[in-house]
Amino acid sequence: MDQLKSGWFSELTDLLSGRSFSMEVEQVLHKEQSKYQEILVLKTKSHGVVLVLDGMIQCTEFDEYAYQEMISFLPLFSHPKPQRVLIVGGGDGGVAREVAKHPLVETIDQVEIDDRVVELSKIYLPFMAEGFNSPKLNLHIADGFKFMEEHTQYYDVIITDSSDPIGPAISLFQKSYFELMKRALRPGGIVCSQADTFWGHLENATSMYGHCKEVFSKAAYATSYVSTYPAGQIGFALGSLDETTNFANPVYQLTNQQRKDMKLRYYTNDIHKAAFALPAFVVDAFEAKNTTL
Amino acid sequence: MDQLKSGWFSELTDLLSGRSFSMEVEQVLHKEQSKYQEILVLKTKSHGVVLVLDGMIQCTEFDEYAYQEMISFLPLFSHPKPQRVLIVGGGDGGVAREVAKHPLVETIDQVEIDDRVVELSKIYLPFMAEGFNSPKLNLHIADGFKFMEEHTQYYDVIITDSSDPIGPAISLFQKSYFELMKRALRPGGIVCSQADTFWGHLENATSMYGHCKEVFSKAAYATSYVSTYPAGQIGFALGSLDETTNFANPVYQLTNQQRKDMKLRYYTNDIHKAAFALPAFVVDAFEAKNTTL
Repeated sequence: MDQLKSGWFSELTDLLSGRSFSMEVEQVLHKEQSKYQEILVLKTKSHGVVLVLDGMIQCTEFDEYAYQEMISFLPLFSHPKPQRVLIVGGGDGGVAREVAKHPLVETIDQVEIDDRVVELSKIYLPFMAEGFNSPKLNLHIADGFKFMEEHTQYYDVIITDSSDPIGPAISLFQKSYFELMKRALRPGGIVCSQADTFWGHLENATSMYGHCKEVFSKAAYATSYVSTYPAGQIGFALGSLDETTNFANPVYQLTNQQRKDMKLRYYTNDIHKAAFALPAFVVDAFEAKNTTL
Repeated sequence: MDQLKSGWFSELTDLLSGRSFSMEVEQVLHKEQSKYQEILVLKTKSHGVVLVLDGMIQCTEFDEYAYQEMISFLPLFSHPKPQRVLIVGGGDGGVAREVAKHPLVETIDQVEIDDRVVELSKIYLPFMAEGFNSPKLNLHIADGFKFMEEHTQYYDVIITDSSDPIGPAISLFQKSYFELMKRALRPGGIVCSQADTFWGHLENATSMYGHCKEVFSKAAYATSYVSTYPAGQIGFALGSLDETTNFANPVYQLTNQQRKDMKLRYYTNDIHKAAFALPAFVVDAFEAKNTTL
């Protein structure tokens, strides 16, 4: 299969041996090789505008909110006072858009390695890039790993919205990165990282959860539907410096009216709790690695 | 895109406008046009043996257990004494395999319209078709809708494991079918039907939930990951004749040892509860149709 054959884009990488998701393309809006990765922006028939990095779908207009809301509010609503937030990656602006909605968040630093993702998102994904307009946000074009090394006891919440563990994001999946994040947190701080799918990538998911378990006082693994990610599912590894953190019981419960005022389309109080219920085969795999839930 | 081009199978039907899931095929094990539908059995590189009906993936060796366990145990563990169970469809045998595991289930009637699905599953999907070996099971090759018309106040639980709302299964998605099921249930009886995905097929999901809501004293909609279904997600519409049924709090809680003895690979007590937490856009769609959760 070719990636762009007869009007269809097919997701085909070494990460997806023997399987592929395809979308009918109405228009290739942009294609370039940046300093770090291949960037492709498509207008599709079924999913609106789609951002593809190094051949992997990063987000689609159709369902991006599921991922952005979950990676943002699982950690934010688990922290009693998330004043200073750091976003690593997230060059499309979607996570910044969600984080800025939290009334207690005062400042957001965001560090994205590839300024071309930011610039192209402003042009083609304005519904996500509106996140860059928040007065709370300071955007730094830099390497997330190096940026983290320069900060000590500063942030309340660190959200790592990385691409997949190939290409520029590979260092963000390693244990040393979790140790750096720990150092960059204030007491009681919380981290949340994109942590792959348990369908077919169970080892990666187990490893990411293991890093949190080893480095933080409290750790958890959560899951969400995102229909256009491989297998339709993505996981999040969460860690807290506060051993009393109970990730599955958020400290802040939204009323229905608050949820609607915040324009949340995926996240609810019930969805937050349910995200921590994992299939038996995942529970068993985590236990087998001595990383009990 | 062709369905079987250069060694790949692509799922391409009117139900999936503009999107497609593909798997690399090692061998086409069988292909025939039965009296009711096109049956295709593939050996794939990534998902083992795969059953395809009328171009839609029905189950894969890789992840079939998620669907079979959820459609079986969501209703069974919501019923205090599920002695008589009816399975409509399920010609691969997977649901029968799970239902037979429940210690209180005494007899299982199964009605499948297409005997060729049963026969081919016995040959190519023996890990599912083992369900047909249970001494509790009586298999009827007949039309599920007509079979239901002939039964009154007989079953405790009715599970409808249908293919998609095209082809032979279309009548199983209509309100009249839910009314027939209601008549076929004993007092306190419960039904559970495959009810499409809320990603892209939100109208179908809303409609199925609506049927349960209109016909039964208690209704609920549940969701599960199944990585090889469109969007990686499938829903279940549940109804009960007993208004005190609380689907999200099963009457029976499994111990870890019981779960392992029953060889459950997906279902857990926590997964059961979590299945009833729905994304905000689904909650809002259900409310907009006056079918509040």
